[in-house]
Amino acid sequence: MGIYQVRKEGKRILGWDSPVTEIVNPAFIDLESRNGLGWLDGFNEMLVRCGYEWTGHPGVDDNGQLLSLHGRVQNTPASLVKIEIDDEAPHTITVTGVVAESTFKKSNLSTETQLSIIPGENTFSINDTLTNKADYDDEYQIIYHSNFGKPILEKGAKVHAAASEISPFNDYEKGGLKNWQTYLGPTKDFDEMVFNLKPISDKEGNSLAVLHNKDADSGVSMQFKTDQLPVLTIWKNTDTLKQGYVTGIEPGTSYAYNTKYQRPLGLVPTIKAGEQKHFDLVYTVLTNAADVSQAVDTVDNIMKKEKIQLKSEPLVDLSH
Amino acid sequence: MGIYQVRKEGKRILGWDSPVTEIVNPAFIDLESRNGLGWLDGFNEMLVRCGYEWTGHPGVDDNGQLLSLHGRVQNTPASLVKIEIDDEAPHTITVTGVVAESTFKKSNLSTETQLSIIPGENTFSINDTLTNKADYDDEYQIIYHSNFGKPILEKGAKVHAAASEISPFNDYEKGGLKNWQTYLGPTKDFDEMVFNLKPISDKEGNSLAVLHNKDADSGVSMQFKTDQLPVLTIWKNTDTLKQGYVTGIEPGTSYAYNTKYQRPLGLVPTIKAGEQKHFDLVYTVLTNAADVSQAVDTVDNIMKKEKIQLKSEPLVDLSH
Amino acid sequence: MGIYQVRKEGKRILGWDSPVTEIVNPAFIDLESRNGLGWLDGFNEMLVRCGYEWTGHPGVDDNGQLLSLHGRVQNTPASLVKIEIDDEAPHTITVTGVVAESTFKKSNLSTETQLSIIPGENTFSINDTLTNKADYDDEYQIIYHSNFGKPILEKGAKVHAAASEISPFNDYEKGGLKNWQTYLGPTKDFDEMVFNLKPISDKEGNSLAVLHNKDADSGVSMQFKTDQLPVLTIWKNTDTLKQGYVTGIEPGTSYAYNTKYQRPLGLVPTIKAGEQKHFDLVYTVLTNAADVSQAVDTVDNIMKKEKIQLKSEPLVDLSH
Repeated sequence: MGIYQVRKEGKRILGWDSPVTEIVNPAFIDLESRNGLGWLDGFNEMLVRCGYEWTGHPGVDDNGQLLSLHGRVQNTPASLVKIEIDDEAPHTITVTGVVAESTFKKSNLSTETQLSIIPGENTFSINDTLTNKADYDDEYQIIYHSNFGKPILEKGAKVHAAASEISPFNDYEKGGLKNWQTYLGPTKDFDEMVFNLKPISDKEGNSLAVLHNKDADSGVSMQFKTDQLPVLTIWKNTDTLKQGYVTGIEPGTSYAYNTKYQRPLGLVPTIKAGEQKHFDLVYTVLTNAADVSQAVDTVDNIMKKEKIQLKSEPLVDLSH
Repeated sequence: MGIYQVRKEGKRILGWDSPVTEIVNPAFIDLESRNGLGWLDGFNEMLVRCGYEWTGHPGVDDNGQLLSLHGRVQNTPASLVKIEIDDEAPHTITVTGVVAESTFKKSNLSTETQLSIIPGENTFSINDTLTNKADYDDEYQIIYHSNFGKPILEKGAKVHAAASEISPFNDYEKGGLKNWQTYLGPTKDFDEMVFNLKPISDKEGNSLAVLHNKDADSGVSMQFKTDQLPVLTIWKNTDTLKQGYVTGIEPGTSYAYNTKYQRPLGLVPTIKAGEQKHFDLVYTVLTNAADVSQAVDTVDNIMKKEKIQLKSEPLVDLSH
Repeated sequence: MGIYQVRKEGKRILGWDSPVTEIVNPAFIDLESRNGLGWLDGFNEMLVRCGYEWTGHPGVDDNGQLLSLHGRVQNTPASLVKIEIDDEAPHTITVTGVVAESTFKKSNLSTETQLSIIPGENTFSINDTLTNKADYDDEYQIIYHSNFGKPILEKGAKVHAAASEISPFNDYEKGGLKNWQTYLGPTKDFDEMVFNLKPISDKEGNSLAVLHNKDADSGVSMQFKTDQLPVLTIWKNTDTLKQGYVTGIEPGTSYAYNTKYQRPLGLVPTIKAGEQKHFDLVYTVLTNAADVSQAVDTVDNIMKKEKIQLKSEPLVDLSH
């Protein structure tokens, strides 16, 4: 139930160009291959849900089980997929589906995904409901891995996020911390830099992240709720075009570390037996300078003239 | 070629409610995932064949290969599936299929599965033929993992089995040995108890196990041949309803231990090059008190007033 | 895009009888199962491409990743499959397909496979083009694993190859080195013998290998280019018929050792960013004694009266 691309008038307005050029049927993906990196065989979507049983980088958890990259939900076929069009104006279109992560004795997490759009508007909403259908409490983790390349991302593109702190994911990112907001053009051997942010929200609990092009007349904003998704990852993969020139704006319960590193950080929450968790995001396509300016102002208003604190040390020491 | 449910007049009479609510296409199951527990992603059938190349719990065999939980046959698509209806009364309906476990240089086990039922009767038969199509002898193992929940299983339900001995699978089951015949209602944190039985048979070589409800007016019996299936596992998974409230009555060549633990017990038999092995079981739905009483009497007759011996020590010491 | 069999007038003329009797959909194959031997669950083709990201036997590479047997390309569904029939005489039939080995951040190798045949001729051609679509150089490896059983292979069948050297794959093959050219009939407990050859070519760069039956009146030849495919493996799997009585004639960039053993031998070539590599092979069915004799003469002409040197020591010492 991911979103491959957002198109308007025949053109892609949100999405990116992955080296994986076709949509790959999950039947052909072996998530545990390459030491848990099999997910990379199908990665090319604008929105990928990473969860819900676990998220983050592959690694053997404390119980001896390999947790594969970014969880199982994106490669689990959905059931009960429905498209509903409201008879009443404004004729909202809603696409829902149910994705079950049901493994006997292991987990029974079921997510109803919901995508809503009002025809003619530049906004669409994700309103997901995760239910723990088991009689036992369980852990859960989710990252809304939202990926943007051309036409927004380019040299001089900029990201704004309402956040109190930012830190490098690992040592490599230390050198890029100061310039976290701006993007390089396609850069050979850049690989990727990942930054961990602590987002903050307005009175209604909404945080906002904005990505716009160099001229600040085209972009995208993502609104999310910090009580649902308390952390934000910014993934700058400004390597060459063919390698996948892309940035991820990724609100989540968790950062991209393996689960075992996030428990001590308090970033592996519990969902009680029978409990439901909601995840509500609003994506807005910014089509002109006024749109971009207004979105950046919203970020500034949440920040209330405070500056984001740059923390030079990673939250997790991966060298051990 | 498993059996998902047995239904009569629109109602399920044999089967159970697994947290895995849909039938999962084997293309989406990775048996080696979760250290060999991938089989649990699809487990919800009334009858699952566990075999034939290996059976039992996952673990690395003496040759360094991971044997995944309960073998490959249940997640191997069948070929040559046929339904035959006899022109002559009583118009027996027979469903056959061939399931090949063929791996170059590794195994060439082919099983013709056969399910037969006479319309209007409360009985159906399984008559499987395993053929070693290779020119070399091979090991084989099979458990007929037969699972029953509602409407038979309930607090006070009871199991009867013609057997000379019973022992706990592991230390946890020691506390439940004395009450092995009776069932608790759905019990949080119960998890599961597994018991290993040595079944005995009548003059024709038939053994019988019976499960019935508390009032002893509804149940199921399973007849099997001890020369084909010399051991019997009783799996009591009387955890909560949502966790999968179910019991397994499981005749087999082997218990549920990993293969490497069963070789020293003599429970990993050989099938010679070109040899065929037959497995014949009769399932009978018991629809009233007389049916139940007669089935229990049959068990008693095989037992000839001998009592089952309770052995307090597990056959295998898994603590090492 | 492999070739299952070559048939003429209703009869198989090239191919073999594998214990895997059906064509297995890759969705059901888990390449990393059995410590990387999952490929064996589907192996029954006359021509299998083994590559292109890696080839050879399974094993953990120096970077800690399991490389599964014979790579991923044979179990990757093809895209853009086309059949073209030339309007002009001789009405060449060409089958093309694209097989992408695209894994984000790992590889972006794309192969256009091409099979061409002129109706009525006894020859068909393979003309593959491998493209490294990434912006980074990459390793690649390929073996054209071409397998022949009945009706060509039999006791007294013989293989000829234009080559300067031959050595045993491992210690077991030392005993068979002297008789490398001739084949036993189906032989229980023979298992397999593998020989590593250094092929040589004529002025046009073409090498030739020929397999023919005992009477030298039926066979097959394979022409390949040593600058594209500098090594040749001969796989003698003359075990019993049911085990898969077959021989492989396998030109490649590499032998069948795991990649980590072939880097020191210089047999893991590089394909530069954007570069293309071509692989051109011609298979000819030899239908009478004259055909066979002419093919063997061609081998002799390339050899120019030089004899192949028998090297008694394997190129790789697998005992360490």
